[in-house]
Amino acid sequence: MLSCMHEHDGPLTRLRRSHEQAVLELLRKHGPLSRAELGARSGLSRTTLHDIVAGLVGNGSVVAGTPHVEVRKRGRPVEKLSLNPAAGEAVGIDFARRAVHVAAVNFAHEVIGSASEAHAADLSWPERIDIAGRLLATLATGSSVGSADGGPRGAAGALHLDALSAIGVGVVGPITEPGSENAHAQGIDGLPDLLRKQFGVPVLLDNNTRLAALAEAVWGAAADSSDVLYLRLSHGVGGGLVVGGALHRGRNGLSGEFGHITVDPAGRPCDCGGTGCLETRASLDAVLYRYREAGGRADDLAGLLDAAAAGESAALGVLERVGNDVGGVLAAVCHAVGPGVIVVGGELAEAGPTLLEPIERALRQQLMPMARQHVDVRHATLGEAGSALGGIALVLHESPLLSHYPRPVPEENA
Amino acid sequence: MLSCMHEHDGPLTRLRRSHEQAVLELLRKHGPLSRAELGARSGLSRTTLHDIVAGLVGNGSVVAGTPHVEVRKRGRPVEKLSLNPAAGEAVGIDFARRAVHVAAVNFAHEVIGSASEAHAADLSWPERIDIAGRLLATLATGSSVGSADGGPRGAAGALHLDALSAIGVGVVGPITEPGSENAHAQGIDGLPDLLRKQFGVPVLLDNNTRLAALAEAVWGAAADSSDVLYLRLSHGVGGGLVVGGALHRGRNGLSGEFGHITVDPAGRPCDCGGTGCLETRASLDAVLYRYREAGGRADDLAGLLDAAAAGESAALGVLERVGNDVGGVLAAVCHAVGPGVIVVGGELAEAGPTLLEPIERALRQQLMPMARQHVDVRHATLGEAGSALGGIALVLHESPLLSHYPRPVPEENA
Repeated sequence: MLSCMHEHDGPLTRLRRSHEQAVLELLRKHGPLSRAELGARSGLSRTTLHDIVAGLVGNGSVVAGTPHVEVRKRGRPVEKLSLNPAAGEAVGIDFARRAVHVAAVNFAHEVIGSASEAHAADLSWPERIDIAGRLLATLATGSSVGSADGGPRGAAGALHLDALSAIGVGVVGPITEPGSENAHAQGIDGLPDLLRKQFGVPVLLDNNTRLAALAEAVWGAAADSSDVLYLRLSHGVGGGLVVGGALHRGRNGLSGEFGHITVDPAGRPCDCGGTGCLETRASLDAVLYRYREAGGRADDLAGLLDAAAAGESAALGVLERVGNDVGGVLAAVCHAVGPGVIVVGGELAEAGPTLLEPIERALRQQLMPMARQHVDVRHATLGEAGSALGGIALVLHESPLLSHYPRPVPEENA
Repeated sequence: MLSCMHEHDGPLTRLRRSHEQAVLELLRKHGPLSRAELGARSGLSRTTLHDIVAGLVGNGSVVAGTPHVEVRKRGRPVEKLSLNPAAGEAVGIDFARRAVHVAAVNFAHEVIGSASEAHAADLSWPERIDIAGRLLATLATGSSVGSADGGPRGAAGALHLDALSAIGVGVVGPITEPGSENAHAQGIDGLPDLLRKQFGVPVLLDNNTRLAALAEAVWGAAADSSDVLYLRLSHGVGGGLVVGGALHRGRNGLSGEFGHITVDPAGRPCDCGGTGCLETRASLDAVLYRYREAGGRADDLAGLLDAAAAGESAALGVLERVGNDVGGVLAAVCHAVGPGVIVVGGELAEAGPTLLEPIERALRQQLMPMARQHVDVRHATLGEAGSALGGIALVLHESPLLSHYPRPVPEENA
């Protein structure tokens, strides 16, 4: 187990880990390699490499064998090293308001499985962490307990958790020092410590809406783009930005707060303390309020969506006006950050084209003409598993644990 | 000269360069080191290290000597390697509308000097490049030709250009693939090739307003922050974002277009083809127009600023309203990206507090309360040298040539 080293995480440990990651990256890229090939490609000294490989074999992330019949001059078979397909590299957990979602990938970065469990809104943190542990155990034993709400399932067999390098965790609300081992969820003191005790590996924490943004950019609707604006239209309105493939956080973790961009300085007061924010026009409550003001009769989202699907003019008119507000805010953000793809998620996005088309229309109208062709509006695809998958992406793509290693460059003549 | 290798830039060359950068970084950090110390700290094999050091000594970026009297057991003095203080590592050039600005740093990342020359607006590209070459030659010979308009001057002696690793170049207008060797300035075909021929090293191109943003974050008003929003209020309104210390570009290089965020959907047509953009309210022409509409009598910026300084109510009222428009747009961008510092530059910013205070007031009013304490509005400090310095920052911080090397981590016991 690496866990003890992780907890006393000094520069030497980090350097060692960066070498480990370089070796894993080479094996991921090239498949099985001999020690000599690894040495040539990594540029590491023999002593360093021997040490690093021994550690990786010891913790189960790499296996040694002679998969190909190759012989050296003197006839001794050359041992090849390869990734262990059953070793879990990273796990993601999403602590949503009323459910826990988990997902895991192996060292080849294949999703091994995901699982979900709903719970009461007031459940304590130790109880939620127990649920996460239980769900992960089901992945580890390979039992096919999946979520009731879609998302990827167990695929590549049982998970072997001993070589886990880190866990990426999403929670509701603002995070200080997001994405780092020093992250803290506001109002949830000690959560990283609880998680670290339970799982024995470093824990990287971030806002779960932002993690959903990252997941849509890595595994979901925007998997073909590395510059993504994700907007979630739900009980609140928020989102996240992925910039050059990395999650954007901003100073003090306050970014992606699209719901608090002013739409009407003379508008209604917002929960944030401001006035006329987009959230006062486009949250689920605000949309239902506008719908009833327009003479609509349904009390809940399902009713509104049914009415829109049936072509009711009050419902369509409200979605048109909401889309106009949302599109205007998205245009402002696009001018600032220039995303290639905009992904719209959250319950309200289930309205589909009756909402997305007005959004896109207002967006293009307010974008400078030369930018209009460059942006693409899409419906989110990952559903509830999104944030847990985002936790994994956080570990694999952004972990400060992994960010310092020499990314091996493919050699021309090798 | 590295130039031939740079032009045929394959993966092996990149790997080699990443090792070179690792060695330079260690010497920058620790001062003179022996080959043995470099080996231990870099993790590179003896053969690789020998090869890399020979190249660096050969191109003049590293010098060998025995600066400290240290003897080994057998009495032979230990040769130490150190950075050559006269070797230019990176050069920045800003091709502004009517002037060329250059700046250079050595391998210790000290600014060696800067210089500027004004020219007619219609000067050809070969002529502008000649000016840049001449200005750099004045730095290289150590003659103290400086700019007439401020900015840092020659400091650390004459520049030795043979070891130059790259040139960062700013130009007006949109750039495709900004910051890379494949960058192209729209409407200026072949500029990178012309520059590469003239200087024999890789050329990284970006928009000069964005480079000014980067420079303010690295050397200027926001040198203490790595998340910076830079706004330039000039003949046009534009800017740039620095995110986690790196320049943000967005998909297709369209980012930082704060001037084209809609302020009034029913407003005046903008040069971009849109309607009611911030630029129609806050460009120099727009501000003078608003001033004359309000009964002001000056025809130019200097007159407006004088009137404001004298407390004329028409001038102050216009700056207040402009500040209100600008602050509202900045608030929207802040919610999206969460910068720690906002830097306002460009000629209009010379109005000082009569403009910056209204900007800050409107900004805070439209920010969600929890974000209000986290943002700081400052006047730009680098003046006209900003974009050339930004070109250097581009080379040092963001060059794809330099981004793959293993950043050495300080060892605990060494």
